[in-house]
Amino acid sequence: MNTQPFERLESEVRSYCRSFPTVFTHSEGSHLTDEDGKRYLDFFAGAGVLNYGHNHPDFKKALIAYLEDGGIVHSLDMYSAAKRRFLETFDEVILQPRGMEYRVQFPGPTGTNAVESAFKLARKVTGRKNIVAFTNAFHGMTLGALAASTNAGKRAGAGVPLDNVHVVPFDGYPGAGDSLAYLEAVLDDKGSGVDKPAAIILETVQAEGGIRVAGFNWLKRLETIAHERNILLIVDDIQVGCGRTGPFFSFEPAGIRPDMITLSKSLSGFGLPFSLVLIQPEHDQWAPGEHNGTFRGHNPAFVTATAALEFWRDDSLEKATGKKAELVAERLEKIAAKHSDAIAEVRGRGLIQGLVFKENNMGNKVSAEAFQRGLIVETAGVGDEVLKLLPPLTTTEEEFETGLDIIAESVEAALAQHQREVA
Amino acid sequence: MNTQPFERLESEVRSYCRSFPTVFTHSEGSHLTDEDGKRYLDFFAGAGVLNYGHNHPDFKKALIAYLEDGGIVHSLDMYSAAKRRFLETFDEVILQPRGMEYRVQFPGPTGTNAVESAFKLARKVTGRKNIVAFTNAFHGMTLGALAASTNAGKRAGAGVPLDNVHVVPFDGYPGAGDSLAYLEAVLDDKGSGVDKPAAIILETVQAEGGIRVAGFNWLKRLETIAHERNILLIVDDIQVGCGRTGPFFSFEPAGIRPDMITLSKSLSGFGLPFSLVLIQPEHDQWAPGEHNGTFRGHNPAFVTATAALEFWRDDSLEKATGKKAELVAERLEKIAAKHSDAIAEVRGRGLIQGLVFKENNMGNKVSAEAFQRGLIVETAGVGDEVLKLLPPLTTTEEEFETGLDIIAESVEAALAQHQREVA
Amino acid sequence: MNTQPFERLESEVRSYCRSFPTVFTHSEGSHLTDEDGKRYLDFFAGAGVLNYGHNHPDFKKALIAYLEDGGIVHSLDMYSAAKRRFLETFDEVILQPRGMEYRVQFPGPTGTNAVESAFKLARKVTGRKNIVAFTNAFHGMTLGALAASTNAGKRAGAGVPLDNVHVVPFDGYPGAGDSLAYLEAVLDDKGSGVDKPAAIILETVQAEGGIRVAGFNWLKRLETIAHERNILLIVDDIQVGCGRTGPFFSFEPAGIRPDMITLSKSLSGFGLPFSLVLIQPEHDQWAPGEHNGTFRGHNPAFVTATAALEFWRDDSLEKATGKKAELVAERLEKIAAKHSDAIAEVRGRGLIQGLVFKENNMGNKVSAEAFQRGLIVETAGVGDEVLKLLPPLTTTEEEFETGLDIIAESVEAALAQHQREVA
Amino acid sequence: MNTQPFERLESEVRSYCRSFPTVFTHSEGSHLTDEDGKRYLDFFAGAGVLNYGHNHPDFKKALIAYLEDGGIVHSLDMYSAAKRRFLETFDEVILQPRGMEYRVQFPGPTGTNAVESAFKLARKVTGRKNIVAFTNAFHGMTLGALAASTNAGKRAGAGVPLDNVHVVPFDGYPGAGDSLAYLEAVLDDKGSGVDKPAAIILETVQAEGGIRVAGFNWLKRLETIAHERNILLIVDDIQVGCGRTGPFFSFEPAGIRPDMITLSKSLSGFGLPFSLVLIQPEHDQWAPGEHNGTFRGHNPAFVTATAALEFWRDDSLEKATGKKAELVAERLEKIAAKHSDAIAEVRGRGLIQGLVFKENNMGNKVSAEAFQRGLIVETAGVGDEVLKLLPPLTTTEEEFETGLDIIAESVEAALAQHQREVA
Repeated sequence: MNTQPFERLESEVRSYCRSFPTVFTHSEGSHLTDEDGKRYLDFFAGAGVLNYGHNHPDFKKALIAYLEDGGIVHSLDMYSAAKRRFLETFDEVILQPRGMEYRVQFPGPTGTNAVESAFKLARKVTGRKNIVAFTNAFHGMTLGALAASTNAGKRAGAGVPLDNVHVVPFDGYPGAGDSLAYLEAVLDDKGSGVDKPAAIILETVQAEGGIRVAGFNWLKRLETIAHERNILLIVDDIQVGCGRTGPFFSFEPAGIRPDMITLSKSLSGFGLPFSLVLIQPEHDQWAPGEHNGTFRGHNPAFVTATAALEFWRDDSLEKATGKKAELVAERLEKIAAKHSDAIAEVRGRGLIQGLVFKENNMGNKVSAEAFQRGLIVETAGVGDEVLKLLPPLTTTEEEFETGLDIIAESVEAALAQHQREVA
Repeated sequence: MNTQPFERLESEVRSYCRSFPTVFTHSEGSHLTDEDGKRYLDFFAGAGVLNYGHNHPDFKKALIAYLEDGGIVHSLDMYSAAKRRFLETFDEVILQPRGMEYRVQFPGPTGTNAVESAFKLARKVTGRKNIVAFTNAFHGMTLGALAASTNAGKRAGAGVPLDNVHVVPFDGYPGAGDSLAYLEAVLDDKGSGVDKPAAIILETVQAEGGIRVAGFNWLKRLETIAHERNILLIVDDIQVGCGRTGPFFSFEPAGIRPDMITLSKSLSGFGLPFSLVLIQPEHDQWAPGEHNGTFRGHNPAFVTATAALEFWRDDSLEKATGKKAELVAERLEKIAAKHSDAIAEVRGRGLIQGLVFKENNMGNKVSAEAFQRGLIVETAGVGDEVLKLLPPLTTTEEEFETGLDIIAESVEAALAQHQREVA
Repeated sequence: MNTQPFERLESEVRSYCRSFPTVFTHSEGSHLTDEDGKRYLDFFAGAGVLNYGHNHPDFKKALIAYLEDGGIVHSLDMYSAAKRRFLETFDEVILQPRGMEYRVQFPGPTGTNAVESAFKLARKVTGRKNIVAFTNAFHGMTLGALAASTNAGKRAGAGVPLDNVHVVPFDGYPGAGDSLAYLEAVLDDKGSGVDKPAAIILETVQAEGGIRVAGFNWLKRLETIAHERNILLIVDDIQVGCGRTGPFFSFEPAGIRPDMITLSKSLSGFGLPFSLVLIQPEHDQWAPGEHNGTFRGHNPAFVTATAALEFWRDDSLEKATGKKAELVAERLEKIAAKHSDAIAEVRGRGLIQGLVFKENNMGNKVSAEAFQRGLIVETAGVGDEVLKLLPPLTTTEEEFETGLDIIAESVEAALAQHQREVA
Repeated sequence: MNTQPFERLESEVRSYCRSFPTVFTHSEGSHLTDEDGKRYLDFFAGAGVLNYGHNHPDFKKALIAYLEDGGIVHSLDMYSAAKRRFLETFDEVILQPRGMEYRVQFPGPTGTNAVESAFKLARKVTGRKNIVAFTNAFHGMTLGALAASTNAGKRAGAGVPLDNVHVVPFDGYPGAGDSLAYLEAVLDDKGSGVDKPAAIILETVQAEGGIRVAGFNWLKRLETIAHERNILLIVDDIQVGCGRTGPFFSFEPAGIRPDMITLSKSLSGFGLPFSLVLIQPEHDQWAPGEHNGTFRGHNPAFVTATAALEFWRDDSLEKATGKKAELVAERLEKIAAKHSDAIAEVRGRGLIQGLVFKENNMGNKVSAEAFQRGLIVETAGVGDEVLKLLPPLTTTEEEFETGLDIIAESVEAALAQHQREVA
């Protein structure tokens, strides 16, 4: 294993490689292989990019066929047959069965680009400037999206004030009483000092923020609050959409209808950069080219994304995810019960689950133990106090058992080590 | 040709498809093919993404081989063998021969992400907030980069004020006298009202802004001004790097050494989203993960980018570009001379050339005529007054002759039509 | 009465003259006289400027003597004997007896100037940018102070976004649960999105915001929250300082020690523009002239302010205010009880009292009725739903009875009229 | 002389008292007297507040009479007879003879308040956010006005970025070529990056910025540039209005008609805080109370300001100022000629004149020498390189000769001392 070229040539900003210090060469399904041939089970899934596993054979086949045929690779936002096929399939498989009529914007292939686009459009449509976001939110790292992201370290990186966003308490935030009663009060009180927002943006399950789950009633009530006041509701489904919680969109069980939805990460299915914004037709008030970007027409991603939509022609994936989620939650609850002095709770929905430690950095310690045992699993929460399980949805039950065994052992080992240190 | 699905499902923000209203299916070298089988010569090259032409066979071969081998596709910013190979090759082929010692940051795969990263880092390193940019600059569409982009329409799309950037006149800006004398004055005058900047960012040839070329002496003098005052110099080489003007970096003939360089567009060689920031080692003061992004480790792009670097093992591409550029410039000068009433000048460097019309929108009219004649060519300048030639560097002389014949005809036709309209 | 010159020559921005449409010529104690010789009892007191009544004879005598003697009137911030006498007297009468050691800044003679200065200094001392303010706050109309003022109409007047301030719920804000528990949570949670503030600013009784009174325990706890986190606590005592609530500083009964205090309005005693910032010595990190202003050395105000301090050599004014406040509160409670369908509550502390109507604009209607009956009384609250009593502290019991009789009648009349209108 | 109370009790922010370290007690005409009975000739005039000299006997008499009569002192923005008299007199003496029809806003009694009001209104009227200001401008110290002030030290005091203002070169700025050609270019070029401004604000003679004089043709051309583009032109005449350059408004000789004018400083004539904004009637789009302030109705200032307007019933003051200005300029030119190695030039218009030294801080050194010799004279320019003469307009020829003799001696002494130091 030779990591010296990275240390010599790559910027200090690199991060995940510090937690998982090996050089990966191959990947397949729920496994990564490093250059020494060691296989790792992957419960991180590219931070939610690989809901269908690594290098899915169907998607790969479709991509290679497209390339071999000489299909156009880069087409800006010109019309391509691959884009048309994606649009038609997305409409047929996702939108129509759900009675949805969104317009699709390809804003550039990263999540932050989708969020920046949604903010621009919400501000244009309403003529307002303020955006309401929630405590423990993460929406991206470019200046507009970062203003709605709440991690103090990431915010400090901006080097300039982040403005035109007002943060309010998320469902269950400490000290906040009835968080939506407070939101309603500040929106209706012309003396609240919270300028009327163009939009409210949220993740239904806050991933980076520590696997915090909004209740369905809370979501429904939030939708009502927004719509009664002509405030746009944006669901950022970048990390927990594409089936992560079970259904394609995370908000489906809440029965809400956002004004805009951002998708990315698992959208291409294959790990290729790709994102989109779904826009209610009456809000599609863009002027041509008002937002643009070089890689809006990245046809390889259209091809694999279209292939990935095949998973959604019936409800088998959603059902399987529900079943697997139960298995995971049960096992995590057992671990939590066994270490109730150190573990506060298990949080999550579908296949995004968090083991919440009472002390900061315990997530990191367990993650490090797990890596030594052949499992890739990351942390969440501003203090890395949460061990975040984000496995491919296609992970088999056997693989789950293996991974959860490793987690159980790693928790034991990390807590034992921690006790030795504090003793 | 069926464009109805786009009209029904895609957002109004789509733009280039309006200028080139057909559905593309295949591409190769300097040609695109639409679904009716019509072939188009491409002098647009994905807005500078396709310096090596469409679907270069070597890059395609490398990519397919990687995919077939089960190479890891998505790896966040973990170490992968494909990334290491890219880093080592970039160092060997690009940095070392030029005596450069930059650190490489992968900031997310789009140009705007690279610019946002560079701004964050410059602000961190210097503790200052202001960025100096130039009239007619374009650096991206997310809020931080957009603040340094000058197109009024794009800026208005932000919906909020764009701040912490001060614009000064570019080389040759009307009314500005000696633009660098003015810059020096405002930087040294504590009564100028221009807060001392963290960085100065520029394109050596402003592409979107209307093919405006900075002189080499001007660049050299600008570097001195920045460095004497401990202001970082950032060259945004996203559109005119990777050989567009001849050498790999556009600024090489000026003999300057930027503190940071942003690259994207043609970097992957194959049209895949990819970008990087080059950072002088003393400025690499990032904390791990202080800037991040999901698609920093997009291995297919590492693979094709590494393949593309083979072009730079000798100076043959640079020389060929120089020769082709002469041919293009000669032909354009002839066209300009013939229509000196309507055409103000020919501007450009290497294979980015602009035919500057005296009236706004003439670029659009010529582009439309050219499209009918089988040539894709776009416009630049805030009034679309410039016909922008941005052909693949690999375009053959014969293809150039064909394309320039079409341009000559299209200019004739558009001017004749224009005269009929105003008469 | 001739108001035509105002209508012809004065800007539409004029406001109080619309509620009290007559031309005043003379004033004395708690009375104003208009040019028709009609006398008005004044329960508005220049929005808190005239705690000692209009044209107090002692202050007038001192001022005329100073002028007749040829005392220097305007001295910028040069040393003058009048300023020295004010400083020494303020130290002797106000600071020393309270065990206080503040430094005095004269920031320009208006309240908003004092607030702007306090913000600058807090940001300098801490190196932070954010300021925490409270719902229903009012701190001034210039851009820095306006950002911390919450009235939507006033904010909209800025014409630009107001930033670097985060609003949190004031004591008792609806829906906010335990407002200080929430404040603590967002300050301690590095994922809250509330950037660590330089300072927290508050009015202990929010005047413009609707006569909202912070509890003493709440204030004490707030002080602890701020100081444990090295956040500066600024009490804006511009409207409710100088004895308005009884003691000289409104926060004295809460036993807190702010890092900075702003005073203005009644400070000169005589209605002359005058303001100051009190600064804990360790925070007095100003560079000379870093904040300045032309009218910092307005000697007539030093003279009358020094005379006004004579009121504070014993506790007789404080005690009398307490007694009068009881009288006022009792009478208001009776009115409220009688009209419990229309009046929600009586709020206030000392001689700032509010009769809170359940419907917006009822304050205005009662005010108009009172004006016809010879009483000047204004409203508060963003919906003008509060009748605000802000009489001179020197108002006699007999005057109070007269004024409260008028209020009782005016409430009757306004409610009767209102019922006729809605019937 | 006892300055200890100031050192003990006053904030470090105090500044002028450091240059003129004595305690003043009396003043009259062009003289100040300190508590040791020493008299000083005043060529500073309260930074432009005392155009009619200290404690003018007519104004004093009017003020004392008003006070003795029990005239209302503080009336917020209610109608008062004193305000009406001021408005009518201002209209009769200033506006009508000049064919002007401005509306008068009383925005609070300081200059920065007037500037903040003008910015708010310009942004409201145009719906735009940007303001164009000039290099070396000074418009005030509150956040909105400070954004348009260019002194780096004052700007740094803000502690937050100052935005929504773009600075362009003033008449004669080094390196800037034809500064108005550049301004026109950036305003008309939709690719300039300078967002279309609501207003352009300027001082016709930049006082704090170093006595920089705009040419009349330049002003006229600037007015045309603004008006052709529906950009409001604001003249900040706070320091050089009220006769400082000769005519009442500094811009009269240029024949321009600003959309708004700000006045303060010498407006009350007596050193009392007072300011106003003059607004072309079509721009008077304020909502009532949209901007407000406690001390808008400061009747003592109305009284003295009305008395001061008596100076403007004929052109005798203007003529006298012109004559005295010639005398001053002649003497300064002689001094400059004698020390042409150290003095770059004499700049100014009317009775604002600057002796511009080639080295920074020479202004301070001469000022200190002059103070020892009984003359108060201040500096200007960001490096204190300018000795600024701002004497009362009522200064007699004999006083001018005395003061200029002192200046001549002080220049000699300071230069001699400086040569000893550098030797």
